Amino acid sequence: MDSFFSDRISDVPRSFIREILKVAIDPTIISFAGGLPNRQFFPAEELQRATQQVFERYGRDLFQYSNSEGFLPLRQWIAERYRKTQGLEISPESILITSGSQQGLDLLGKVLLNEGEGVLMEAPGYLGAIQAFSIYRPEFMNVAVDEQGMVLEELDHQLARGNPKLAYSVPNFQNPAGISYSDANREAVAQRLRGKRCVLVEDNPYGDLRFSGTPARSFYELLPGQTVLLGSFSKCVIPGFRLGWLVAPEALMQKLLVAKQATDLHTSHFTQCIVHQYLMDNDIDAHIATIVDAYGDQCRAMMEAMDRHFPSSVRYTRPDGGMFLWVTLPGKLSAMALFEEAVKQQVVFVPGDPFYTDQQSHSTLRLSFSCVDAATIEVGIERLGLAIKKMLGEAS
Amino acid sequence: MDSFFSDRISDVPRSFIREILKVAIDPTIISFAGGLPNRQFFPAEELQRATQQVFERYGRDLFQYSNSEGFLPLRQWIAERYRKTQGLEISPESILITSGSQQGLDLLGKVLLNEGEGVLMEAPGYLGAIQAFSIYRPEFMNVAVDEQGMVLEELDHQLARGNPKLAYSVPNFQNPAGISYSDANREAVAQRLRGKRCVLVEDNPYGDLRFSGTPARSFYELLPGQTVLLGSFSKCVIPGFRLGWLVAPEALMQKLLVAKQATDLHTSHFTQCIVHQYLMDNDIDAHIATIVDAYGDQCRAMMEAMDRHFPSSVRYTRPDGGMFLWVTLPGKLSAMALFEEAVKQQVVFVPGDPFYTDQQSHSTLRLSFSCVDAATIEVGIERLGLAIKKMLGEAS
Repeated sequence: MDSFFSDRISDVPRSFIREILKVAIDPTIISFAGGLPNRQFFPAEELQRATQQVFERYGRDLFQYSNSEGFLPLRQWIAERYRKTQGLEISPESILITSGSQQGLDLLGKVLLNEGEGVLMEAPGYLGAIQAFSIYRPEFMNVAVDEQGMVLEELDHQLARGNPKLAYSVPNFQNPAGISYSDANREAVAQRLRGKRCVLVEDNPYGDLRFSGTPARSFYELLPGQTVLLGSFSKCVIPGFRLGWLVAPEALMQKLLVAKQATDLHTSHFTQCIVHQYLMDNDIDAHIATIVDAYGDQCRAMMEAMDRHFPSSVRYTRPDGGMFLWVTLPGKLSAMALFEEAVKQQVVFVPGDPFYTDQQSHSTLRLSFSCVDAATIEVGIERLGLAIKKMLGEAS
Repeated sequence: MDSFFSDRISDVPRSFIREILKVAIDPTIISFAGGLPNRQFFPAEELQRATQQVFERYGRDLFQYSNSEGFLPLRQWIAERYRKTQGLEISPESILITSGSQQGLDLLGKVLLNEGEGVLMEAPGYLGAIQAFSIYRPEFMNVAVDEQGMVLEELDHQLARGNPKLAYSVPNFQNPAGISYSDANREAVAQRLRGKRCVLVEDNPYGDLRFSGTPARSFYELLPGQTVLLGSFSKCVIPGFRLGWLVAPEALMQKLLVAKQATDLHTSHFTQCIVHQYLMDNDIDAHIATIVDAYGDQCRAMMEAMDRHFPSSVRYTRPDGGMFLWVTLPGKLSAMALFEEAVKQQVVFVPGDPFYTDQQSHSTLRLSFSCVDAATIEVGIERLGLAIKKMLGEAS
């Protein structure tokens, strides 16, 4: 029956991560594989109170079909937060509430991408974006990222080949590599795309999770009128509600609204009201500070453990925030091969392959530090170091 | 900037209903336009109790990212209900929870439809399905429906032209026409599609809302292995949570899961848990009976008022359930033209045009009886009768 299905669905890579998560259920295995926020920091009591509040405040209004744009007070809160934290002037009318920022990616693919059109994609890049855009069968134009941001020679090379319709970036604490774009790199990327018929997507789920360094400017300022912002409540409040948003220019927003209606009519009004109430009644900055403290400690613990337990030929990124760091193995050692050995040592990670669109074997891998405490990190990194040494023939 | 957008989004019809709903905000206007369930029957207290229960029962487990398939106990409940109410044997593994059944339509379009492939569509047909499938640029193969179901001559004509990849039907209390397919019609449709490379979608949001007549057999029995069932909690429990489901054969389910992941990862786990708890703790059949009593009374009130206030040349369907009935005006009178006159008389409805893919002007219209009481129906139908008579030149 396989050829019965649409061509587009055959192009979507299966998620290796789902398979890994199955392995990771074994409690004796230490997992650096997940991309999950730490559940310890979910504001459970506060959300329960907010839920009681909205039942009393809105009654049956909570339950009816609602508008496709999303709950206006929540969009007003988001607009105000952009103003306060980044100095960006964004009107609530430019904001569409989405069922997670994953849906933002799907909607952008729907309204922008014809088959074969170009998508500039970070390499490595966010797996969920590769999946979402693959549905619309674009040509991926890959640009490597390093600790400065997009590698400009590669960007120039791709732009010489053709004009991308959409450029995708996670400029702050990128998933998977943990890198951030410098101000100079952002300006250089913006300058190259300015005036082109190309929308740059700044996906920023981790921006609030900064534990060192200083913020850089948003593409929204550097590339006005061409930038779409994606945001999410998943990393700093709650992932399970599936609430995200996008900010888009007026003409694009009109098309996105048509697509939103055709896709799921609207995002749950109930959960939008709860999160809005939570944000009204609580100090979100204090809450974020707690998460940042923990993630920062765990990231430092991981880097220090790697310094001690990994061969010096192994390189890794040093994130200023977020949930991930990125390891490059020496001598073209396959991360997939290492994965098999690591499972034997009872530790898992995500091999780099699914974060590239090239279907090649890579010697890179992603480690998440968000859900593991320092003691577990020490044991897990020691195990992983042992596996790496075994693969390199340094141990036995 | 218009040509900048994807070809697919230009094909999606704008929803005239959004415009109507804006008019309908005026409290002096009586609206038969909405497609909303009656908010009076939302089980507000019961849902509040269920919410408190799940906070206590699951704690932080409510809040994390969850699986794409949906909450297993909820899928088990749905499977059991199919067994109990329709005698269908469906395993929970065949059920995918969706963000409203609108998302089921989007996912089916994603995994099945290549550009230009055929979609058998009821004429008139559900606007949301036309929108969802339009995204994937199929060729619509329209088949008229009447009080028996699909008009078989038209079905034969379409099947002689080519093989549809997907056939869409709302066989119980159809939106917009309020008609139901007879057993004989279902068998005739199934017989024609049997063995073809075609998936029949039985969209059944209203099936529980029967106030007269007897149930007919599901296509799931008549066309096994080729039928996808769509269901929804929107009409009998709560629309604002955006919870629906689909039932699909194994091979198709694998593709749908990939599409679900790429589209929004998963549906809100929190709201799934609440609805499951509500269903465990309450008598859903008693709740449905209350809704059915009211909708049945309102439907009868509307039909009786039409008998009194409409010219005898106006025809309309006599639904056995659901929320809608369908009016055919005499003498090719344009329903769009009538709409203008009706607004002057302070009553609104949905003209038939958006329920057809042919972009023609139609002399049909949809009336909803779900949210209006008998007294309001009497006044509104009298006003509408006056508008019709004016247009026909019988009054003034």
